Amino acid sequence: MDKTKILIGTDTISGIAPQILKVFSQVSDEKTLPYGNDIFTTKCKNIISNIFEKQDLEIIPMMSGTASNSLALSSFLRSYGSILCHSESHINKDEGGAPEFFSGGGKLRTISNISGRLNSRDITEKLNELNFKGKQHSKISGISVTQLAENGTLYSQKEIMEISNICRENNFYLHMDGARFSNALVSQQSVSPAEATWKIGIDCLSLGATKNGAMAAEVIIFFNKNLATEAKKMIKQTGHVIPKTRFITAQLNAWFEDGLWLKLAQKANENAKYLSGELSKFEDFTLLYPTQGNEVFLKINKETYKKILELNIIPNLWREISDDEIEVRFVTSFETKLNLIDEIINRFKTCFSYNSETIV
Amino acid sequence: MDKTKILIGTDTISGIAPQILKVFSQVSDEKTLPYGNDIFTTKCKNIISNIFEKQDLEIIPMMSGTASNSLALSSFLRSYGSILCHSESHINKDEGGAPEFFSGGGKLRTISNISGRLNSRDITEKLNELNFKGKQHSKISGISVTQLAENGTLYSQKEIMEISNICRENNFYLHMDGARFSNALVSQQSVSPAEATWKIGIDCLSLGATKNGAMAAEVIIFFNKNLATEAKKMIKQTGHVIPKTRFITAQLNAWFEDGLWLKLAQKANENAKYLSGELSKFEDFTLLYPTQGNEVFLKINKETYKKILELNIIPNLWREISDDEIEVRFVTSFETKLNLIDEIINRFKTCFSYNSETIV
Amino acid sequence: MDKTKILIGTDTISGIAPQILKVFSQVSDEKTLPYGNDIFTTKCKNIISNIFEKQDLEIIPMMSGTASNSLALSSFLRSYGSILCHSESHINKDEGGAPEFFSGGGKLRTISNISGRLNSRDITEKLNELNFKGKQHSKISGISVTQLAENGTLYSQKEIMEISNICRENNFYLHMDGARFSNALVSQQSVSPAEATWKIGIDCLSLGATKNGAMAAEVIIFFNKNLATEAKKMIKQTGHVIPKTRFITAQLNAWFEDGLWLKLAQKANENAKYLSGELSKFEDFTLLYPTQGNEVFLKINKETYKKILELNIIPNLWREISDDEIEVRFVTSFETKLNLIDEIINRFKTCFSYNSETIV
Amino acid sequence: MDKTKILIGTDTISGIAPQILKVFSQVSDEKTLPYGNDIFTTKCKNIISNIFEKQDLEIIPMMSGTASNSLALSSFLRSYGSILCHSESHINKDEGGAPEFFSGGGKLRTISNISGRLNSRDITEKLNELNFKGKQHSKISGISVTQLAENGTLYSQKEIMEISNICRENNFYLHMDGARFSNALVSQQSVSPAEATWKIGIDCLSLGATKNGAMAAEVIIFFNKNLATEAKKMIKQTGHVIPKTRFITAQLNAWFEDGLWLKLAQKANENAKYLSGELSKFEDFTLLYPTQGNEVFLKINKETYKKILELNIIPNLWREISDDEIEVRFVTSFETKLNLIDEIINRFKTCFSYNSETIV
Repeated sequence: MDKTKILIGTDTISGIAPQILKVFSQVSDEKTLPYGNDIFTTKCKNIISNIFEKQDLEIIPMMSGTASNSLALSSFLRSYGSILCHSESHINKDEGGAPEFFSGGGKLRTISNISGRLNSRDITEKLNELNFKGKQHSKISGISVTQLAENGTLYSQKEIMEISNICRENNFYLHMDGARFSNALVSQQSVSPAEATWKIGIDCLSLGATKNGAMAAEVIIFFNKNLATEAKKMIKQTGHVIPKTRFITAQLNAWFEDGLWLKLAQKANENAKYLSGELSKFEDFTLLYPTQGNEVFLKINKETYKKILELNIIPNLWREISDDEIEVRFVTSFETKLNLIDEIINRFKTCFSYNSETIV
Repeated sequence: MDKTKILIGTDTISGIAPQILKVFSQVSDEKTLPYGNDIFTTKCKNIISNIFEKQDLEIIPMMSGTASNSLALSSFLRSYGSILCHSESHINKDEGGAPEFFSGGGKLRTISNISGRLNSRDITEKLNELNFKGKQHSKISGISVTQLAENGTLYSQKEIMEISNICRENNFYLHMDGARFSNALVSQQSVSPAEATWKIGIDCLSLGATKNGAMAAEVIIFFNKNLATEAKKMIKQTGHVIPKTRFITAQLNAWFEDGLWLKLAQKANENAKYLSGELSKFEDFTLLYPTQGNEVFLKINKETYKKILELNIIPNLWREISDDEIEVRFVTSFETKLNLIDEIINRFKTCFSYNSETIV
Repeated sequence: MDKTKILIGTDTISGIAPQILKVFSQVSDEKTLPYGNDIFTTKCKNIISNIFEKQDLEIIPMMSGTASNSLALSSFLRSYGSILCHSESHINKDEGGAPEFFSGGGKLRTISNISGRLNSRDITEKLNELNFKGKQHSKISGISVTQLAENGTLYSQKEIMEISNICRENNFYLHMDGARFSNALVSQQSVSPAEATWKIGIDCLSLGATKNGAMAAEVIIFFNKNLATEAKKMIKQTGHVIPKTRFITAQLNAWFEDGLWLKLAQKANENAKYLSGELSKFEDFTLLYPTQGNEVFLKINKETYKKILELNIIPNLWREISDDEIEVRFVTSFETKLNLIDEIINRFKTCFSYNSETIV
Repeated sequence: MDKTKILIGTDTISGIAPQILKVFSQVSDEKTLPYGNDIFTTKCKNIISNIFEKQDLEIIPMMSGTASNSLALSSFLRSYGSILCHSESHINKDEGGAPEFFSGGGKLRTISNISGRLNSRDITEKLNELNFKGKQHSKISGISVTQLAENGTLYSQKEIMEISNICRENNFYLHMDGARFSNALVSQQSVSPAEATWKIGIDCLSLGATKNGAMAAEVIIFFNKNLATEAKKMIKQTGHVIPKTRFITAQLNAWFEDGLWLKLAQKANENAKYLSGELSKFEDFTLLYPTQGNEVFLKINKETYKKILELNIIPNLWREISDDEIEVRFVTSFETKLNLIDEIINRFKTCFSYNSETIV
């Protein structure tokens, strides 16, 4: 096969955005104290306070999304606690037990449904089931939602608010895994960062830049400062204090500057929209969810999958649906070139039936 | 109300069987080294080897069933591991996160179904769902079954064997929570302790005597001795080495002597059978599962429950089924007197409609 | 050798005092709810409140001293914390890492000295050494003292108070490992339980009855109730909730009744005093510390030790002092018969030079 | 004060070496799979195998030195284990309990001495003290040495070999914290990387590039591959898998290329030598240890320290020696300019008495 290999299964293939790449040499030239006692880190907190319209928040810069989620969750999950999350969530399926480890044995109580998003009805049902027997159960201490959800769909403001109301009534904390929060934000247009988070009850947000332009830059934003106290005690003990923290926060600063984070996400989402529109015209592919961010999920049969690989196109093998069918994921990023997408579509046309009349 | 209160919701209300009670003074008179270096503990291992027809096994005497399960599971659950269990299992619902804590963040992956017991079909489906994505998932390291199951029903030999086959194929360990193993054993009659455990693939059994005649006596039996090595390292670190271990093992020795454990279980099961037969004659009560051990589960409406409490009879409030209906549990023990059961039934007759013609 | 073996190395060889032994059948006859929701446990808290002259305290009944210490320490040791303790303390040397495990990686910072007891000078020096560098160090969250100390000596009220003052100044918690607290109390005579604990700043006491008459009965007494909140969340998760808790608290109730705990300790101490007086008359033995409780520590050479074992007398091999010399421990209990001590001395006289003129 | 501030207390102030800085854009342009499945990571293992002359080794790239040490130690420290280390070691004093947390409660047993380095005599003495009492103690599972030691001095090959022999005799693992291993290596000249590590019994090395030219790049090298198995299971669970791992390994590759790591270390050491020579000529400063790497430790009185700060020179405040005296640390890096050192010396000359005749 002489076709070049096209990796299109994840946004962690992407490189560093040029605006972020240039900070490495800038920071390198600046002599400053280590461990976050530097101007880049101070500035980072100010920028985040401004963008999220909240002065009394705390931040913890991180280099790993798994650690960012786990540390955030540990802030309210230690000692006989458990949290509710979707069975498909990254914290439950893709973090190798890190939330449980960080929290000294905290428990994730999962809810399954086909939407891929938690909702107030399913949560209420689960709480009824769990809260009945009393003290020997792990106490529920909070709920975690993922925005964009793991299947690439968007929680509406109303959906989050209903979950948030349950949290308030039950004295739960509400965490948001925002590995693709920027993609979610541009997908909603008229919603501000503040409105998408603390104004509707989010206590802490694990915000990720790594999939959207940075090298390795995540930040936990504690809108509820009490939670930060516990988490801050744990950073060093979990080995997540980086001596040259300034290189993380400088990445974040460049990411936020002039709305770069939203511009990059906008580009990634547009790429996905275009890809999704084209893919849906193939009869062999079934689009599983609306494309609300930078991810496209297809149901295909295994024979089709084999052919795709033979075209040297590598999506992410997501899930077995049945003996015959699987789910695959295509992910675009800010870097994805339109002609790369066209190349994918053209290769598919050589193999699969394309119906240009299809309307998505 | 002048009626005396009748507690009938759990077998942990029961006292100590006379044959076991007498060992406390016997052991007290014997001067011997602490920490299990004594003749009672040595004898205990021999007795268990004989009863389970296996010389190369290891035992760890314990005082808590939760600790017994958690320590057993830790032997194969540490580091990036998870186990499969029923969502209703004691380890998942009633141990306050102890298995997760003991194993440093091990994960319980749960399967829900109405039978209350794991089966090969549900397990296979769950494995397909979990094993698809590879290395970031928590690796499955074993399966835990509960015999009697949490709803009082019995796994058949065939059911266990099918699960055991899956374990063998996947290189999983198989643990049995045997808090009511003696009740299960007498319920099966022609099955020996060996046949019910290692001969069908059980790697370790958390065997409980506390609910069936002892004060506080549990024992982890490692048919697979490799697992004991890891567990033995953890006993002291989890605070479960008791200086006067001899008082635990002496309880176990008396419990096993002359088949006492089976006689007590036989009595408890017969009591449950009688109670179950009578309860099923009331129109307001729906028997939920066959009575295969010493537990009876009823579906009743909340109004009925209120009346039961007014009769000063206290079953265990098990679960909310719907806004109107709940599940309650009645548990008998070796001590339960027939005239206590008759008193319960007589009180119910004053309040609920009894149909003596009903045939269970 | 036709001499019977005499075990004299530890008080965990002792049996159950008759007054405590009789509670097992009494409790067995009482039908009551499990998990501490019973009259014995309620009564236990009242008794302890009265004896310690404090109404607003919390108790947690336990079956293991190691767990009792570890759970107490965890109440203030989690998350980036460490405690100061003596290098010879039980928590540091004999608990297999349990305090570290319970607290999710808490750290014991040790102080060594020949007295075997912490003192304000050594603590101040250690704090200067540790507190200098700031946030990357494990924060000190408390101090743990052992009364009787591990070498059988007694902290004076003044010594504890000086340590307590350091705690107050530094916002540390103060824990007491009271495995032999009753022996310490009778050794001081005019000091009340309250004066020996919370009145001089002890926040929580791990009080042990197991070495002094009970089968397995320990209790954590939280004079500072805030600490109990965290600890209570951990009991179940560490597997230390015993279904039939009533058998622990009933042992404690009998132990406290009519001052039995002090009478038993008095007997044990007198036995040690007599043994110590006799042992000090042998030229081959060097008494290492004043006998202030029920323990006697001798420095002997290895040849002497060998002869002792040949006399079929088994003290506890405590420590190697040098290539030639070791330290051995003799421990008496409430049960130790005077004629057993005489038999020990008589056997020694057959072998070692005895000087009846020696005055201790 | 119009003098510019000079930070000279740590090598984590340094930036990124130009040869390493350029890899960020190179890697960014390369589209490749995440999580270490990339050519940079494959190449990294080959380079390390070649440099350390060992084909069957395993590597784990990391971004934090604390995590690198903790993960390495966890590979043999879990379950009832403890390790011996110097009381001044980074793992004991500067990692906030991370080794204890990673290992689920593992224990560090410390040895204090004035040399700042472990030696066979002190270790033997400690082992005699610890190993005497048997099974309730935390078993010793290994020893950790730091090369350069925490006080900047060098272990000789002979010193390590003697420790290594103890390890072999006792079945211990031997870990080396090599945060400044490159500085140590150039200080020894005729010793190869292999000779400095596995050829004298090092089982795993936590090698750091961050202090010597990289942004954030550490690597655990397992010469004993068995240890890697356990550690690899823990990486994800501790949150230390970085999606774009390629940016870590690419830094390491550039660091190793053409001996850059040694050239940078050589420069840092020469800078320290020059600084140390000059500092020793001041009567107010006492050089505490020979300058064998890139660190200089001075004993000064507090008045002197105050004056230094007034000169706007900021060394690292290391330790309080007495009420009057403190220890301060000066650290050079590959970046430190000679004229910066001259500026420091010149400012000191304005204030302290300088004796140009002094010969170090």
